[in-house]
Amino acid sequence: MHRVRFRDPAGSVRTGEWTDDGISFGGETFDPATVDVLPPCEPSKIVCVGLNYEKHAEETGMDIPERPLLFLKPPNALASHGDTVSLPAGKERVDYEAELGVVIGEQCRNVEPDDAMDVIAGFTCLNDISNRDDQEVEQNWIRGKAFDNSAPLGPVVSTPDEVPADASIELRVNGETRQDSSRADFIFTVPELVAEITTYMTLEPGDVISTGTPEGVGPLSDGDRVEIDIEGIRTLEHTVRSD
Amino acid sequence: MHRVRFRDPAGSVRTGEWTDDGISFGGETFDPATVDVLPPCEPSKIVCVGLNYEKHAEETGMDIPERPLLFLKPPNALASHGDTVSLPAGKERVDYEAELGVVIGEQCRNVEPDDAMDVIAGFTCLNDISNRDDQEVEQNWIRGKAFDNSAPLGPVVSTPDEVPADASIELRVNGETRQDSSRADFIFTVPELVAEITTYMTLEPGDVISTGTPEGVGPLSDGDRVEIDIEGIRTLEHTVRSD
Repeated sequence: MHRVRFRDPAGSVRTGEWTDDGISFGGETFDPATVDVLPPCEPSKIVCVGLNYEKHAEETGMDIPERPLLFLKPPNALASHGDTVSLPAGKERVDYEAELGVVIGEQCRNVEPDDAMDVIAGFTCLNDISNRDDQEVEQNWIRGKAFDNSAPLGPVVSTPDEVPADASIELRVNGETRQDSSRADFIFTVPELVAEITTYMTLEPGDVISTGTPEGVGPLSDGDRVEIDIEGIRTLEHTVRSD
Repeated sequence: MHRVRFRDPAGSVRTGEWTDDGISFGGETFDPATVDVLPPCEPSKIVCVGLNYEKHAEETGMDIPERPLLFLKPPNALASHGDTVSLPAGKERVDYEAELGVVIGEQCRNVEPDDAMDVIAGFTCLNDISNRDDQEVEQNWIRGKAFDNSAPLGPVVSTPDEVPADASIELRVNGETRQDSSRADFIFTVPELVAEITTYMTLEPGDVISTGTPEGVGPLSDGDRVEIDIEGIRTLEHTVRSD
């Protein structure tokens, strides 16, 4: 099942199902082109993972971490499927990073890896947009990673049965493939990430764990159209504006 | 005026005023000892500032930054006045850090320093509890700073007129003064912090900017009673449990 949050033509926010027939709620079916698709959940925090693929660690010149490298995106980072995302002004390099997002289904703390799938509502797509100018010169990646619209998310939450363990993860810019990898290449698995993070933090329903990006990261420019295509999840699409 | 959020004896969450006569709401006045005091606002994020006092930068052996060092505490970090705060298990050193918290009053972005006071609802006290074991070995201070209950906040939001520009900032552990400084010693002023942060992030009503801690930071132990006393704000008090 693919759950979608959207604003219907009358302006009401609904949570419905997105099938090949359209977006349905309460017996009505809407043409996706006629509604505003919203982020599919309302995270109180997005806990992001860095360097979770060996080849991406290699391309950044960093060592493979012994435990997950974590950072945060707060709710101001959210952007929606279909948005035109404004990049931070006056920066030399702002990159895309395709990531599988894990959506939490219930409040949890100190989750054992074997129990992790019980607290997960499903999966979504996230673009971890990264402002390298600032990221490279700050201790904590705040200006670099937590700016407004740095986390386009969606378009749906797919239940776990829809997303295979070796789901392909692809990102295209203007139709050209730039990242092409698989969930099977994670250094830390989803259950390991849930266990590590909940050792320190309570996760709430709607919170998102973003599982890191594979090799192939690169810069975004004004007018670029980004598509993130993860097997079992509908394609997240947005464009970019750089002033 | 000192605004307080609390759960009244009937279990309802109220926002009232805390005067020397007690906590009042809707014509009733409660003895503060008979209500649960809650965090005085509901931040979607706490944006924290590191190294905002010269003497604290000196004691940590770090350079004075050219622009504010920023990090984040998400909502899971919140704890209340009167709480017994559990420290993260199995750590060698977890420190207190007394800080003046700036509470945002309206949604804002790209605020000029001259306009910053217009977006501020008031001030509160925050203990930026810091797990040094992890902070010292991670790129982003997540395990070190964003764990559950790492931000006791409150007990009130005092309107800006109540808190002088040179307000004293004091922290006591078991009645003994450990930090004793002044808002006048900030490297970056409150308007400068609001301007810098809102260049990157939209702030929401109830969001908090925590302005950094003065010299005198030190460790917390099981059973410690912490008081943060900032001129013009009621004293924030909590105890500590270390398993």
